[in-house]
Amino acid sequence: MSSNALKIIPLGGFGEVGKNMMVYEYGKNIMIVETGIMFPENDMLGIDYIIPDFEYVKERKDLVRGIVITHGHEDHVGAISHIVEEIDAPIYAAPLTRGFIEVKLSEANLLNQATINTVNAGDTEHIGPFEVEFFHVSHSIPDTLGLGIHTPEGLVVHTSDYKFDPTPVDGWPSDFAKLAEFSGEGVLALVADSTNADKPGWTASEKVIDDGLDEVFSETSGRIIVASFASLVSRMQQVADAAHRHGRKMAFVGYSMKKNSKMARDLGYLDLPGDLIVGLDEALNMNPKKVVLMATGSQGEPYSIMGRLSRGTNRRFDLLEDDTIVLSSRTIPGNEEVVYKTINRLFRRGAHVIYEDLAKVHVSGHARQDEMKLMINLVKPKYLVPMHGELRHLKQHAALAKEIGFSDQNVQVIENGQVLEFENGKMQTKERIPGGYVFVDGSRVGDIGPSVVREREKLSQDGVVLISLVLNQSGRLYENPDIISRGFVYKHGDKDIIEQTKAKVREVVDRSQGDLHNDLIQTIKSFLYSKTKKRPIVLVTMNWV
Amino acid sequence: MSSNALKIIPLGGFGEVGKNMMVYEYGKNIMIVETGIMFPENDMLGIDYIIPDFEYVKERKDLVRGIVITHGHEDHVGAISHIVEEIDAPIYAAPLTRGFIEVKLSEANLLNQATINTVNAGDTEHIGPFEVEFFHVSHSIPDTLGLGIHTPEGLVVHTSDYKFDPTPVDGWPSDFAKLAEFSGEGVLALVADSTNADKPGWTASEKVIDDGLDEVFSETSGRIIVASFASLVSRMQQVADAAHRHGRKMAFVGYSMKKNSKMARDLGYLDLPGDLIVGLDEALNMNPKKVVLMATGSQGEPYSIMGRLSRGTNRRFDLLEDDTIVLSSRTIPGNEEVVYKTINRLFRRGAHVIYEDLAKVHVSGHARQDEMKLMINLVKPKYLVPMHGELRHLKQHAALAKEIGFSDQNVQVIENGQVLEFENGKMQTKERIPGGYVFVDGSRVGDIGPSVVREREKLSQDGVVLISLVLNQSGRLYENPDIISRGFVYKHGDKDIIEQTKAKVREVVDRSQGDLHNDLIQTIKSFLYSKTKKRPIVLVTMNWV
Repeated sequence: MSSNALKIIPLGGFGEVGKNMMVYEYGKNIMIVETGIMFPENDMLGIDYIIPDFEYVKERKDLVRGIVITHGHEDHVGAISHIVEEIDAPIYAAPLTRGFIEVKLSEANLLNQATINTVNAGDTEHIGPFEVEFFHVSHSIPDTLGLGIHTPEGLVVHTSDYKFDPTPVDGWPSDFAKLAEFSGEGVLALVADSTNADKPGWTASEKVIDDGLDEVFSETSGRIIVASFASLVSRMQQVADAAHRHGRKMAFVGYSMKKNSKMARDLGYLDLPGDLIVGLDEALNMNPKKVVLMATGSQGEPYSIMGRLSRGTNRRFDLLEDDTIVLSSRTIPGNEEVVYKTINRLFRRGAHVIYEDLAKVHVSGHARQDEMKLMINLVKPKYLVPMHGELRHLKQHAALAKEIGFSDQNVQVIENGQVLEFENGKMQTKERIPGGYVFVDGSRVGDIGPSVVREREKLSQDGVVLISLVLNQSGRLYENPDIISRGFVYKHGDKDIIEQTKAKVREVVDRSQGDLHNDLIQTIKSFLYSKTKKRPIVLVTMNWV
Repeated sequence: MSSNALKIIPLGGFGEVGKNMMVYEYGKNIMIVETGIMFPENDMLGIDYIIPDFEYVKERKDLVRGIVITHGHEDHVGAISHIVEEIDAPIYAAPLTRGFIEVKLSEANLLNQATINTVNAGDTEHIGPFEVEFFHVSHSIPDTLGLGIHTPEGLVVHTSDYKFDPTPVDGWPSDFAKLAEFSGEGVLALVADSTNADKPGWTASEKVIDDGLDEVFSETSGRIIVASFASLVSRMQQVADAAHRHGRKMAFVGYSMKKNSKMARDLGYLDLPGDLIVGLDEALNMNPKKVVLMATGSQGEPYSIMGRLSRGTNRRFDLLEDDTIVLSSRTIPGNEEVVYKTINRLFRRGAHVIYEDLAKVHVSGHARQDEMKLMINLVKPKYLVPMHGELRHLKQHAALAKEIGFSDQNVQVIENGQVLEFENGKMQTKERIPGGYVFVDGSRVGDIGPSVVREREKLSQDGVVLISLVLNQSGRLYENPDIISRGFVYKHGDKDIIEQTKAKVREVVDRSQGDLHNDLIQTIKSFLYSKTKKRPIVLVTMNWV
């Protein structure tokens, strides 16, 4: 392997390839693009989130010249504090993305460890041997940047997540002119979003959501509660606009919704009339037909506001007769079952529930097949490297390229950890390096000690303790908690530690008023540490009967 | 509650309402409609399938005058042997459905215990006080019957699963004339399929699959492997027709595929040219471009042929370069994650994979919104009782009815176990009875002793033993098996029974050549019974590293 070749390595990603972290490497220089998180699959009991295995860059930390974050969604920015803990390199991000980064870093007490450079579409930065031109792409969050990466081996165009929405919420479509300009220079490789490669046609514009919301709002006589992601800033704007059009006030509910909407508003990315936004208390005391609440929980997470409303266990407020709940976000694959269960529960409690099948209350933020072909035709790259999406999407993206004239040699589908090398205008696959993922357990802000990232190898040191609870509908234990541990070694004199842990679990269940899952994890972790000086990963599974 | 009222009670169903069993009751007479099974959700570890809790009819077994099965799909017929074990009443079914019933009953050694009456569309049977007119509806299996149930309280039209496909595979559309005739008589209540109530428009005809298959077949130069359900007889016909059109031979692969196709062919429901069908051995020795294999495993089940091909662990044959796999069935909700993982694995092993998003290789067997409205308008019932589907679908079906003029009083959404009563032309909801479900574990044909149905209460007697394995890619144990039990009581002297069980598990893993999951369950069950005289439910979870 030549040290003067350009290497492209998708590193992070669980299921999806290169989604959460990619490495561009030339000689003794590395540029990281994205530091995102993944959400656990169904068989990953109790895991909170997952970060890329970035051992490869940790071992080469002195070579890292910069970290580029293209936009503020969790799967691109969520792991930033884990990376900043290990790697000292300047971060490059657009203003809104910077806002999300700063929130995360300050929660992890790492804000003063990081150097962040604000970049805007149109700017150029030199990051090691790479001259990076940032250009605008439209996506479901403002300030998304594509990258024109000028390398000694040629120009690589990295699309990030994009679509060619002609009427995006912020009125700023993807930069066709810049893509054509790149094409004029000659593009070595296009590294492009494949998420919707199995969807024909063109993704509907965000604009259709305005009509969808209008329809819901005009048919609704009660309170409206919109569930979405806390990073979907464009959707906040659209819901606020709909509230305004229909003479309703709006309240953001929940920690992350409030925090992110405030940040986006302070930075000028949310345009909200002064008297539109009210506090939750005020909203709850108003005429229901004059109110919109916006909250998280669109994935049916049991401890989210939607999860609690569906079970009747929300503390601040309960469902009212005639409430309409709008799920305005996609269902993350694997969550279908729990989302539909939550919808059924909400219906059972008397709410109307509007979801994507019933009205245009969500559209994808990613290009579909015709847009992908347009991207290829605009950029005219020598090589196409499908990225973002599962293997089946990458394969389909490759098939689309072949339909419009690419040869087998000019498209390369690779998976996480696969090194792709460009030298003298030729593309070759090289060795495979670890490109997996690392589980992160329930440690949170406020946890004593540094933020805890446990890699798989560490499992064999401190092990894992699994607490399995069966609760009845009133939140009491239905039977004794079950505890199993694996790889968790404790001193010989502490044989009854499992019994003591069970007693501790019972105590927490009895006294917890709020987030039982989190309370259990925090208490049991402290307890086990005090007894064993080990920090096993603590998993809690709960079932209700 | 009057004993001279008509009662309608949806009994079985997990998530879906009234899908797997319904009760029609008048005075001291009960008619059961359907005896289906459900498939487990993600959090039901190791459960093979689930049957309706039919305690209500068991307690009234002397009142049961008949059991009507409307068609041969698993969610309508799969639990027949469990019901026949407990209830002695004549079964009514169309010829093909009878074929499926007989296969199940003979596997359970119950065929001589059951009286089965063959009925055809157009026939009328007296079942207790009910005069049941059977009429044809089109669905994704031939011989599906709707029911016109003449009761002392009035006529109830029970649609079963249906769609208004103008060009079904068997050329026999739903019986519009009969529906109009019912309407002329005056219909008290319409009990109708709600499965696709959140889908606009009209379900595409099965005919489009012919085009979809033609497209795939004409673009494929290698072997074609079609994955579907073993009860999807219409799909077998369509794949066979496509094979014939494109000059390929076809082999059915796997026990249930072979058995069901033979049965359907013997009964005249599969029209296969004499030389089209070949055995698997012959097929494997032919030129790959001349062969179609049809197998199960469209849900990504690890031990199905598709699951094994995706891991490279299939014994009879492996994937060939240029194999094309067609998933010609819907993904059961909750299975999305495992299905997509299997697709990715198949791609990784070099296969082309065609699934519903990529080509018209599957359509739903259920009516969509416009067809549901048509059904209501044809039948003109006084009351609508939405059935089949989750609560969200029933609610949406009710909303559709209100769009076309129904009042709140004339539509009643009920859930499993809710008694609905009709008396003097008035509909009322009455008491709620247990309408849940019962897990069935891995007991299979050939298991010594009677087929084992363990109800939830029984769990507290014999308990459950969970064996958790982590295997490496070559099928060896990656670490010691983990065993937890709950409610499983063993004699005091047998303290080390868990250790002995672990040794047994290791032994089975070392020697198993085939279906490890099943081998483990059978061996451990026998072992535990020999040691404890208890029959705990044995669950096995496997993970691969």
